[in-house]
Amino acid sequence: MAAEKTLDDLFLDTLKDIYYAERQIVKALPKMAKAAQSAELKAGFEKHQVETEGQIERLEQIFELLGKPARGKTCDAILGILEEGKSIMDEYKGTIALDAGLVAAAQAVEHYEIARYGTLKTWANELGMKEAVTLLEATLQEEVATDQTLSQLATSAVNQKAA
Amino acid sequence: MAAEKTLDDLFLDTLKDIYYAERQIVKALPKMAKAAQSAELKAGFEKHQVETEGQIERLEQIFELLGKPARGKTCDAILGILEEGKSIMDEYKGTIALDAGLVAAAQAVEHYEIARYGTLKTWANELGMKEAVTLLEATLQEEVATDQTLSQLATSAVNQKAA
Repeated sequence: MAAEKTLDDLFLDTLKDIYYAERQIVKALPKMAKAAQSAELKAGFEKHQVETEGQIERLEQIFELLGKPARGKTCDAILGILEEGKSIMDEYKGTIALDAGLVAAAQAVEHYEIARYGTLKTWANELGMKEAVTLLEATLQEEVATDQTLSQLATSAVNQKAA
Repeated sequence: MAAEKTLDDLFLDTLKDIYYAERQIVKALPKMAKAAQSAELKAGFEKHQVETEGQIERLEQIFELLGKPARGKTCDAILGILEEGKSIMDEYKGTIALDAGLVAAAQAVEHYEIARYGTLKTWANELGMKEAVTLLEATLQEEVATDQTLSQLATSAVNQKAA
């Protein structure tokens, strides 16, 4: 019955959600790096690509801690967010505003991840999963740092060029 | 031609995106308030409902500053995020984990808004739109405060009940 569902189920469902999301992101990042006009933004996407691969491995470690197979669950949120990024790449291709749009798209992705990893970390804490908390915290800090780097890129070169 | 698109176009497109998103959010919040089990969470959603109405008005003021009609543009991101919230409400209905799931869904919404308002504020600044910067900053601060309130709710009553 539905009444039996607990925080453990919610944790696992959300882990599957972000696992699916990360695997979509890791496919999208090379396209964003290729589209980026500034060398700095291109390098930023490439760096985050490598980080994302490590984040996927951390999620796999958490599945292992739970004794569950690492399996994704379709995440409509990330599909929508990445779809918007794709529209920006199409509609602003070859324009001076493209990089500003790419930064914005990437920050929407980062914020989705920040929300999910923050939530998962809180729940792992409640569930007494110490190792998972450490893994989730490591990824959360990377996402926050990436978002800050993107904010710097947005306020400096990218937008001054587009404006 | 595509090459003519500038940061002004990107600003207007993104304004339409968040305007559409806010109008979806204002329709979703009463459902989330109704579903919430704890009185505190219910009150939180109701308070944010009122805030969201004010945020929509601020966006309409910015459209007016631009001399453009206030018009939304389908935002796949918010549709995906809200769809996930709806799934939580369906799948966890009547369970002790429901409120934890609702908080998580709401934080995903908040983070989408934080990303978008942060971006729009940066661009308004670049474009020299002082009044718009003030309006966007006011909303951004409300979204950040709402996210912090939700984090407190997540770590206190909600999760202790579900765990």
